[in-house]
Amino acid sequence: MNIKITGTGSYIPNTVEKNENFHQHEFLNSDGSTIEHANEVIVEKFKAITGIDERRYAKGHLTSSDLGFFAAEKAIADANIDPETIDYIIVAHNFGDVKTNTIQSDLLPCLASRVKHSLRIKNPKCVAYDILFGCPGWIEGVIQAQAFIKAGMAKRCLVIGSETLSRVVDKHDRDSMIYSDGAGATIIEAVNEEGGILTHETASFTYDEAYYLYFGNSNKQELCRDTRYIKMHGRKIYEFALNNVPNAMKTCLDNSGFSIDDVKKIFIHQANEKMDEAIIKRFYRLYKTNAPEHIMPMSINKLGNSSVATVPTLFDLVKNNKLKNHSLSKGDVIIFASVGAGMHINAIVYKY
Amino acid sequence: MNIKITGTGSYIPNTVEKNENFHQHEFLNSDGSTIEHANEVIVEKFKAITGIDERRYAKGHLTSSDLGFFAAEKAIADANIDPETIDYIIVAHNFGDVKTNTIQSDLLPCLASRVKHSLRIKNPKCVAYDILFGCPGWIEGVIQAQAFIKAGMAKRCLVIGSETLSRVVDKHDRDSMIYSDGAGATIIEAVNEEGGILTHETASFTYDEAYYLYFGNSNKQELCRDTRYIKMHGRKIYEFALNNVPNAMKTCLDNSGFSIDDVKKIFIHQANEKMDEAIIKRFYRLYKTNAPEHIMPMSINKLGNSSVATVPTLFDLVKNNKLKNHSLSKGDVIIFASVGAGMHINAIVYKY
Repeated sequence: MNIKITGTGSYIPNTVEKNENFHQHEFLNSDGSTIEHANEVIVEKFKAITGIDERRYAKGHLTSSDLGFFAAEKAIADANIDPETIDYIIVAHNFGDVKTNTIQSDLLPCLASRVKHSLRIKNPKCVAYDILFGCPGWIEGVIQAQAFIKAGMAKRCLVIGSETLSRVVDKHDRDSMIYSDGAGATIIEAVNEEGGILTHETASFTYDEAYYLYFGNSNKQELCRDTRYIKMHGRKIYEFALNNVPNAMKTCLDNSGFSIDDVKKIFIHQANEKMDEAIIKRFYRLYKTNAPEHIMPMSINKLGNSSVATVPTLFDLVKNNKLKNHSLSKGDVIIFASVGAGMHINAIVYKY
Repeated sequence: MNIKITGTGSYIPNTVEKNENFHQHEFLNSDGSTIEHANEVIVEKFKAITGIDERRYAKGHLTSSDLGFFAAEKAIADANIDPETIDYIIVAHNFGDVKTNTIQSDLLPCLASRVKHSLRIKNPKCVAYDILFGCPGWIEGVIQAQAFIKAGMAKRCLVIGSETLSRVVDKHDRDSMIYSDGAGATIIEAVNEEGGILTHETASFTYDEAYYLYFGNSNKQELCRDTRYIKMHGRKIYEFALNNVPNAMKTCLDNSGFSIDDVKKIFIHQANEKMDEAIIKRFYRLYKTNAPEHIMPMSINKLGNSSVATVPTLFDLVKNNKLKNHSLSKGDVIIFASVGAGMHINAIVYKY
């Protein structure tokens, strides 16, 4: 028995929010002081570091669980399965359903229950739960699905990552430009064919790092101190990721028995283009070699950072030949890797 | 190899909120209309149905993750283990950390990361994640811990249920009197001794039931429509629970190979005394017999309904002989069972 991804789907919101749309924002430093540069310069600098040209925002009437449902429908169709045969629905997110122009996370019921409700699945033995694990939540959901299958508790799981980060950003923080909305979904199941999940690695660094990403106040000091937004210590995260993600990926690859030359694609969380490139560079340096061209598909320039949704969405795009210079062939060894709030890191080595 | 609970701990907040404290509240019907009875009558009726005399509220400076940390410290001490040897920290909750007098759920980072941070655990291989699964979250966390152990991914897990429901209630809703704060924690591990988890059952009913518990507006119509609170369709939940929980418990017990006469204690989610009694009555009726005296330890009269925290707290109390007429002996067959938002139901048959 092997455990494979037998279907994928993603939901990319229609509303394109371009960098120019931020030219009129009032960006402030975290202490509330004015930033010396013009917004055009701020946005250009931002683009140079993150690679982000534009990002996607969900339509106002949709919530994170809606996005997850749309992606799930596609994954189910792609896997060509009867939804009533799904044993687990695992939804990874970090803020629940947040209605437009409100500040509360709606977690009642959990998003997996909402998705299952929308899919009109009747089977009560299909267990629907949410996992909170920062940006690596979707990969961790896949690892948990694998555990249930290995433990004999499931045969087929639907794992979704969905997020509407546009609704939890501080408009006075330059980092707000990073975040976007989206959802990716996959069917994970036990199959009698070669390949699938070979190895995985997960780590939670909390001793010093727990609050590198946190819920904090607006940079605009006059705004209500009881209202909080997604905030991060960017430099610390950058250094942390560079020091730890390549090692986790290496452990995972080494445990798989495959060599660095066997790796065909690396699907890495779309957090920041420069950071992702530095991670891959350092990963290959651990093997005393250089990263090959086109090893790392990137979507961040057009889609921004949609947290848990980036990796499954990217995989879905490449699988469907929607990213230039990227395709997958049966037997390809690929790596999924992520890092995010917690701080959590994970990786999966997978044979396509 | 068997999988046992080797340590328990709970945190019961010090602040006692008595029923009399609600005599001055302005209770309204869900449509905003005035309730015809005096508050004293409302409170008496409430007490007759739910069995609740008083409940516990956490001190203002503490959040749900703090409560979970306190309970975890006790469980670790009880199990007499080195915290660095824990492979998973699983925290079940439904609203994240909510600061007193604010309306936002703080989920960044996830509560498991915060608990791990507070426990000063350094080992990055200890994976810390949150599960959202309504009130049955702690039981489901135990089931997931079992899956990781069975799959060879873990040997020892810390499973916590923690909640501060007092911060998400609508003061104009009579149901607000049900909810309380608290935390329970357990160490689950692979051991070479008899007993432990025998069988489990989980079900998610979402087709018609997903929104029986939901996030909704205050009964006081003048209050902000963008602020929402924990709300429930009490009668529907009551009927649902009665129709489905006894069956899930029966399937679980029958699969264990033990008979109804072997059952020594049933630890059921403390949702509502009358409902819990009706569930147990119907469970025994499925076996054409009557529930024995003292089969069901109850804490709701003094502790209220603290969601995910009720079952582990109740188990911790009985294990430590803190509930009159209740004790446990090695070899006792016991049942854990819960029902809640989602709507989710689960049960575990366990040999103590």
